Amino acid sequence: MARVGLNDLRAWLEGILRALNMEAENAKIVADVVMRATLRGVGHHDIYDFPSRIRGLMDGSLTVNPAYKPLASFGAMESWDADNGLGELACAFAMRRAVEAARVHGIGLCAVRASNHYMAAAPYVEWASEQGFAAMLLCKGAPTMGAPDRVEKVVGTLPMGYAFPTDRGWPVLFDACMAYASFGALKARMDRGEPVPDYWGFDAQGRPTTDPQALSKGTRLPIGGHKGFGLAVLGEMLTAVLSHGCVIDEPDLVHGQASPTSHTAIAMRTDALMSARSFEARTGEMVARMQARAPGLHVPGQGSYASRQRLIGQGSIDLKEDLLEQLDTLCGRIPAPALTRQS
Amino acid sequence: MARVGLNDLRAWLEGILRALNMEAENAKIVADVVMRATLRGVGHHDIYDFPSRIRGLMDGSLTVNPAYKPLASFGAMESWDADNGLGELACAFAMRRAVEAARVHGIGLCAVRASNHYMAAAPYVEWASEQGFAAMLLCKGAPTMGAPDRVEKVVGTLPMGYAFPTDRGWPVLFDACMAYASFGALKARMDRGEPVPDYWGFDAQGRPTTDPQALSKGTRLPIGGHKGFGLAVLGEMLTAVLSHGCVIDEPDLVHGQASPTSHTAIAMRTDALMSARSFEARTGEMVARMQARAPGLHVPGQGSYASRQRLIGQGSIDLKEDLLEQLDTLCGRIPAPALTRQS
Repeated sequence: MARVGLNDLRAWLEGILRALNMEAENAKIVADVVMRATLRGVGHHDIYDFPSRIRGLMDGSLTVNPAYKPLASFGAMESWDADNGLGELACAFAMRRAVEAARVHGIGLCAVRASNHYMAAAPYVEWASEQGFAAMLLCKGAPTMGAPDRVEKVVGTLPMGYAFPTDRGWPVLFDACMAYASFGALKARMDRGEPVPDYWGFDAQGRPTTDPQALSKGTRLPIGGHKGFGLAVLGEMLTAVLSHGCVIDEPDLVHGQASPTSHTAIAMRTDALMSARSFEARTGEMVARMQARAPGLHVPGQGSYASRQRLIGQGSIDLKEDLLEQLDTLCGRIPAPALTRQS
Repeated sequence: MARVGLNDLRAWLEGILRALNMEAENAKIVADVVMRATLRGVGHHDIYDFPSRIRGLMDGSLTVNPAYKPLASFGAMESWDADNGLGELACAFAMRRAVEAARVHGIGLCAVRASNHYMAAAPYVEWASEQGFAAMLLCKGAPTMGAPDRVEKVVGTLPMGYAFPTDRGWPVLFDACMAYASFGALKARMDRGEPVPDYWGFDAQGRPTTDPQALSKGTRLPIGGHKGFGLAVLGEMLTAVLSHGCVIDEPDLVHGQASPTSHTAIAMRTDALMSARSFEARTGEMVARMQARAPGLHVPGQGSYASRQRLIGQGSIDLKEDLLEQLDTLCGRIPAPALTRQS
């Protein structure tokens, strides 16, 4: 591990993206998303995914400065083509559009196609909650998940998340997919040498397995069988269909993306049906009542908030050496200034 | 089992509700909901729940002809008080309002408080899909579900459902809650003498159990641990908070309901971002692609549709004797004409 200052990290993120000819405004947005994702302290779906972004921008498989193209709109709903840019840009764009639609209609929905991996839902919904909106973000990815008792991979895992403002100082915030385990969570189990429950999925031969590595090469199953599967199907319709994107395993004929990604952002004014203060008091009351029933109960968002507060308090974060070495190598190739370590 | 004609059943439902002084329009709505729920062929959350409705209407714990009161509205969002009427009426009302808002704004949301048990989400979302809308319905009930590794009951199970029109002749339709098992599903396991997986929840002493009866008296757990829990919390905010209803275990000071229920209906125009025909072709394409990857795959809604077609085809349904005896007894007490058996 090596310690990196948060301000240094943010400036470095903007710098390397600028060195790749990304427009300043876009570089700032992406840096903000990566910082928000990283401050959750999860160790995956954050800065650890950033090298793949740099590679994609370098080899031309990602559009550096995407030109968003409106596809359709009606009332509070919009769909856009995100021009095969970074998922971080497409989702920040979709969430901003959803928030603008919600200002007018109370609720707003923006679906984008031709996006890419978005890291996690948390950065975007967290941003919206800071603007005083309750927000959700859904992701359609490649079909990598099975259906109940099926080894065939039929649908995406529906990575998704939400944030609802409260009066507790932090939003109720949730970020998960509908498989029992994301690849990130499986990787964490592998690193710790921990088995997984045998109902989480099958190995590559279609047999139930407790080995996270075997599972990651096989078929992950949806939470609660047909329940998680039904939710993933809902997500696919809300993202792939509404965005005019590719459904399930459909090839991308517009941009030629190998694994076409769609996203849908939904935002709601917290002051649509009551004052924003009342809304936040009521979500806060919910949290208080759950924790009164179960003392010490972990409410979604508490962990992220605690990590964020701790890291911002110390002004730095510890990152793994192999990540930093990857980043150094990429900086050398671009070239761009290397990320400075504090120790 | 005794066979009952579907037309007889519908007419009888309307008749008994009319005999209880329910307005004709309301009686027709409730009968339609019960018929739709029953045609799914599940054997719970349908006509088998109807005796409790009759009892509630007879003993005054339910308002026979509720007066809906608008609480707030902004753009595409509304909240209403449902006056402690039948959940079947409140949800049909909420779904109609959401559909009307969606006509104007593309998407519409209506939250109602002071509702009651709604049987299932399927009847309402199915109705909306027949009007050409994609619809969702969420339910806040009493806190009967645990959180990951917690035996305390902290949140409702979030019964919910959706229906999205397709070009296959039937909508993709889903109806479930975020616990591994609804009470109905546990009852079915008890009747069949089947055990449940030990990760579905705890018995009344807080021990993992495989006995569906012991589980039904203990604490049911959310699907996928923190994932299902996070979704249930989302549902509670979208229903209880937006409807100005009671959160978690909050007492109902307005109507004095023992177990205050809120619902939220969300509807979307299928022709908001493309033609309705394109929308249905795209959801149909999704189904086709999933089934091409996994031949014979059961897609949400197929089972309900098959049951509905079969029962409508034969024009009748077999109902259990003990249900019919309950109904006869209630008819005698009101009094109302008894339900006629075909055999």
